[in-house]
Amino acid sequence: MKTSLSWFRHQNAARDRRTPPAGLVLLASLMALWGLVCMATSAARADEGMWTFDNPPAKQLQRYGFTPTPEWLDHVRLSSVRFNDGGSGSFVSPHGLVLTNHHVAFGQLQKVSTPQKDYVKDGFYARTPAQELKCPDLELNVLISIENVTARVESVLKPGMSDKDALEARKAEIAKIEKESLEATGLRSDVIPLYHGGEYWLYRYKKYTDVRLVFAPERQIAFFGGDPDNFTYPRYDLDMALFRVYENDKPVHTENYLKWNPQGAADGELVFVSGNPGSTSRLDTVAQIEDMRDDYLPTALKILNRRLGVLKQYSELGPEEAREAARQMFGIENTLKAFNGQYEGLLDKALIAKKQKEESDFRALVDASAEWKREYGTAWDDVAQAEKKFLERLKQARFTSVRASSMAQNALTIVQYVTEVKKPDGKRLDGYHDSELESLRFRLFSPAPVYPRLEEALLADSLQESLEELGADDPFVRAALDGRTPKEAAQEVISRTKMGNPDFRVSLVEGGEAAVAASADPLIVMARRIDPVAREIRKWVDDNVESVETTAGEKIGKARFAAYGKSTYPDATFTLRLSYGTVKGYPMNGTEAPPKTTLYGLYDRADSFGLKPPFDLPQRYLDRRGALELSTPINFVSTCDIIGGNSGSPVINRNAELVGLIFDGNIESLVGDYVYNIENNRAVAVHTGAMTEALRKLYDAGALADELEGRM
Amino acid sequence: MKTSLSWFRHQNAARDRRTPPAGLVLLASLMALWGLVCMATSAARADEGMWTFDNPPAKQLQRYGFTPTPEWLDHVRLSSVRFNDGGSGSFVSPHGLVLTNHHVAFGQLQKVSTPQKDYVKDGFYARTPAQELKCPDLELNVLISIENVTARVESVLKPGMSDKDALEARKAEIAKIEKESLEATGLRSDVIPLYHGGEYWLYRYKKYTDVRLVFAPERQIAFFGGDPDNFTYPRYDLDMALFRVYENDKPVHTENYLKWNPQGAADGELVFVSGNPGSTSRLDTVAQIEDMRDDYLPTALKILNRRLGVLKQYSELGPEEAREAARQMFGIENTLKAFNGQYEGLLDKALIAKKQKEESDFRALVDASAEWKREYGTAWDDVAQAEKKFLERLKQARFTSVRASSMAQNALTIVQYVTEVKKPDGKRLDGYHDSELESLRFRLFSPAPVYPRLEEALLADSLQESLEELGADDPFVRAALDGRTPKEAAQEVISRTKMGNPDFRVSLVEGGEAAVAASADPLIVMARRIDPVAREIRKWVDDNVESVETTAGEKIGKARFAAYGKSTYPDATFTLRLSYGTVKGYPMNGTEAPPKTTLYGLYDRADSFGLKPPFDLPQRYLDRRGALELSTPINFVSTCDIIGGNSGSPVINRNAELVGLIFDGNIESLVGDYVYNIENNRAVAVHTGAMTEALRKLYDAGALADELEGRM
Repeated sequence: MKTSLSWFRHQNAARDRRTPPAGLVLLASLMALWGLVCMATSAARADEGMWTFDNPPAKQLQRYGFTPTPEWLDHVRLSSVRFNDGGSGSFVSPHGLVLTNHHVAFGQLQKVSTPQKDYVKDGFYARTPAQELKCPDLELNVLISIENVTARVESVLKPGMSDKDALEARKAEIAKIEKESLEATGLRSDVIPLYHGGEYWLYRYKKYTDVRLVFAPERQIAFFGGDPDNFTYPRYDLDMALFRVYENDKPVHTENYLKWNPQGAADGELVFVSGNPGSTSRLDTVAQIEDMRDDYLPTALKILNRRLGVLKQYSELGPEEAREAARQMFGIENTLKAFNGQYEGLLDKALIAKKQKEESDFRALVDASAEWKREYGTAWDDVAQAEKKFLERLKQARFTSVRASSMAQNALTIVQYVTEVKKPDGKRLDGYHDSELESLRFRLFSPAPVYPRLEEALLADSLQESLEELGADDPFVRAALDGRTPKEAAQEVISRTKMGNPDFRVSLVEGGEAAVAASADPLIVMARRIDPVAREIRKWVDDNVESVETTAGEKIGKARFAAYGKSTYPDATFTLRLSYGTVKGYPMNGTEAPPKTTLYGLYDRADSFGLKPPFDLPQRYLDRRGALELSTPINFVSTCDIIGGNSGSPVINRNAELVGLIFDGNIESLVGDYVYNIENNRAVAVHTGAMTEALRKLYDAGALADELEGRM
Repeated sequence: MKTSLSWFRHQNAARDRRTPPAGLVLLASLMALWGLVCMATSAARADEGMWTFDNPPAKQLQRYGFTPTPEWLDHVRLSSVRFNDGGSGSFVSPHGLVLTNHHVAFGQLQKVSTPQKDYVKDGFYARTPAQELKCPDLELNVLISIENVTARVESVLKPGMSDKDALEARKAEIAKIEKESLEATGLRSDVIPLYHGGEYWLYRYKKYTDVRLVFAPERQIAFFGGDPDNFTYPRYDLDMALFRVYENDKPVHTENYLKWNPQGAADGELVFVSGNPGSTSRLDTVAQIEDMRDDYLPTALKILNRRLGVLKQYSELGPEEAREAARQMFGIENTLKAFNGQYEGLLDKALIAKKQKEESDFRALVDASAEWKREYGTAWDDVAQAEKKFLERLKQARFTSVRASSMAQNALTIVQYVTEVKKPDGKRLDGYHDSELESLRFRLFSPAPVYPRLEEALLADSLQESLEELGADDPFVRAALDGRTPKEAAQEVISRTKMGNPDFRVSLVEGGEAAVAASADPLIVMARRIDPVAREIRKWVDDNVESVETTAGEKIGKARFAAYGKSTYPDATFTLRLSYGTVKGYPMNGTEAPPKTTLYGLYDRADSFGLKPPFDLPQRYLDRRGALELSTPINFVSTCDIIGGNSGSPVINRNAELVGLIFDGNIESLVGDYVYNIENNRAVAVHTGAMTEALRKLYDAGALADELEGRM
């Protein structure tokens, strides 16, 4: 089960060492931030790559006898949708219908559910437009245009500037470009560093915030096999959900949408994936990869396991508690499994040796030219030095955090918000630039339910963890606890805060610095105490690590273009990318994994485990199995190169018809963060055939199936 | 797909470095021969072990609350059947019906087939007793009694005897014991070294040679998934066949048979396997294991791949050629996959380190006692020395062989037979002792069809291989080729020999040395030329390697009893053993493998690959799928410790009811030759439910199902 919101949240919460508690960080900016220090080495191998739409893999596609025309690319791009909280999707009807994964929709499904009506568990189907359920804080983005702004960003860098000044100047210019674009076009405007600083691009998005739930199956069939089957194949999951996009209270008319092909794709057929891979580390320096292996991942696994323990304990209190914790538990289990796979991959000495060879070859090439050597030659050592420097305050950077509680995190965001917006745009913390504020407020003011008892449990344990890791004398610990035990502090601030009320959040933000300063709300009080500590460590990281690695990253990026030309794709940045490949099985566990699976296999796996959870089936699947054509394909695999963030991406054929819905990678793909291996890296998708078969025969949703198949 | 004839044949042909071309070596003797040098170290872990019936794992079974009574053990032993050409089975009705695997029956199925009637491909069912097909050379054994003869064997060893003299004296005494027993009881009598020379046991068997084929499904469903799925799980194979044992032209009445339990065994239930595991190397010294890894297995893989190439080429000539080569191709592919798995296992440094630690702990214990050190202390170094010595003539030992051609091998057997039988029993080559002759003649005189063109292709390539490996001046190469090219030699001897005619073979053996000496049959002429060369290298190996390792092995075996007591089981020797364990899934490829599979899964896997071979289905499976209860279990796994030779073994519950039929181990079990790991080593069995479901609904064999279920 790939990506989605929680994937990113956790990935970055735990991973992004350069982003200490910083408010509700917007994903794109965050991706940009921590992905800065990388470079591309050699040309991409067959079927490898997450290509930008300005630089599609035309040459690589020649061997398939296919050339993507500009019209084809525009149509696919405009049919693709980004779920701003982490995930992908696509328009699948002219009436604004958007297809994505159940696990991408999970957060919204939980938010529209109540203790009495659990749409996560029971599924949902709106038989009439009036029954469609408005999502509280779902923002969808459609990529309208992209523009290379490298020259403008770089124009502000002056010779002899310190890394620290360069970082500031760059950030200020980026904020300016984004703001100008927003004002000129009204479109969401993000400047994205690609090729790890080798280039900067302005991405403009049409933004939709009135999004309504149309259909979701029971989670049990969407996530059949649960955590054990997650990130594996063969697989039998109906991991789908359908939303409809509205504007002015009417479904949008979507000129660009993907035509439904119920036949799916044949074994060996060329297919594409258009979606938003979140992040890859393929071009990290060896120093960065080793840090990932020796420090970051082991610690992240420890933190996540601890968090999971809290959630499990909470879940066991009762069914309502289990419902409240479900989304987060899934997210953490998902991330744990992914990180474990990555970690295993990095323990493979052959992988590290390969990375080392690539890097030393590259460096030798750079050193062979006196000019390149002078310009770029020190960059790798600079990165290694910065990594080393970072160790000095590593623990502080990692445990100066209240992210475990979204209410506490929101409080900190509000405290920072009111201060930041008063500064010139270019001087603000990332996340608070003018171009980002609308989306930030949309989420911050969300009317979605909060679960105070769960928040309290999470905050208490997170504070306890910080105490254990940093000691009682640490400034963050002192600020957060203020003389209380972690348990007391959490109990006091959560039980008495009004942050659960969106109107309260609005009043604080609208009241500005004065309102926040005057607030006696205990969570705001805590956030005010934390804020200076969080800023201090963040600034230290910026000045000592981030700025150095950004400059070094740009150098390596430029060295790469100089040495190899622009023959490859940039690391993933949660922006729209095109992957390509073929439907294809692979060698697995001594035998072959098939290109697809069928509904027969669903019943086999369920019965094989005696219908024991997580291999149980919703009742309708037992009652109506006789009605199904069991040879209908349910899932299939392709060599398309994807990663977390691609969840919900459409799989299309050369006619840009929808043949499947990405929802996962296989276990062998987890090392894909660092290296793509065509032998056994596979993207796992839901087959179109199973979706309509289930809609018609299990969910009595023939009208919806008709809409998908273009019959209405 | 475990074991059976070909498993052993190839395993030993290629593996047993101590057995240069030696005629039709009887399996038990051969197993004994090459398994001599081992010892047990520490107590067996949970569910580990292939226990002899005199020493069942009673203590280990306590935790299951089960105590096997003597009556239970006798009943199970007398219900168990050994397929003398490599495999296991059991009586499953009072009327002599024997259940085994299709792949154990494969050889006989091919032998009763003709170019016009291919029972391997089409399956077979005798609707009436008269239609049951007599097998040309199938010998079944039932273990009647076992007796410890260690003291008697050892009584002939005198202080100060050389290793060479000791080996001879031991062999002579064993031959004497076997002959006396045969004459006294009329039962097949084999003396088996257990605990690698720590003990010697006399095993007496009731022998059946009138065995008739009753039922076999199409090979395509017995071996569904083919070589890719072989040795893997989840699995969906109906790998079964049924024979009936006759005496005096009537079905035998079998008092001891296993009652059929169509429910099978539940997840977690205690089950047992009673069968004949062929060989394990768990107690080899580290020097032997390293030799296996560095020399034996890589060479065996090379030889087998070459042989497979010849068979494939021959198969492509046409459907009849494909039919003729099918059995051997399966055998070699099966062995290749097993050996590859073993080889991968031995490349695991942790495994070797574990073995090293066990050995050094054991040696330290021995060295700590002055007496033990004097008696046993040098044994490990002696083995290592012998392994080193063996390298001097390794290639000769390996490539002085015509085993690739069964006709040529039979010719050599006849040439040796007539000489050997004139010697005193104790002085003969192994394989030609009085107690072995009846079984040997039964096979040597088999009326089964031979395929001369296939024999020619195999012999030509094998001679070419010997030429390449040993050079033109090697005595074996000169003797075999006699001035001809390998191709010419093979063409000449095979096209003109009468060895294809069983009467000719009988006439030579009955004519004795004079007839063989006078024969102008070109294959006999070739065998006569080869014989002295083969004897010379065999004697050299006996004198320099085998004798040293036998003596050392006995020392290590005794040291083991001294240091640890008799707390464990001996390595496998293709004699009857009892394994125990529970029905249980296991962690696999990132998720869980289920305890069982169902008929749903069969259709899923077939459709997943678009019914492409080897995932195609016999037509009746397509035509009648609607008639089947698809939730019927087809295969299941248990933790029972098995290995090649166990194919066809019954899986029984604590009431000794038949719940399944062993046919394979999973890919993780391949390293089981060296170490048992309860985490993921699993025995794969056919579920009783699928067998009767298929008999009734697909094969219209209700009467047979009734017999199995005790309804007649």
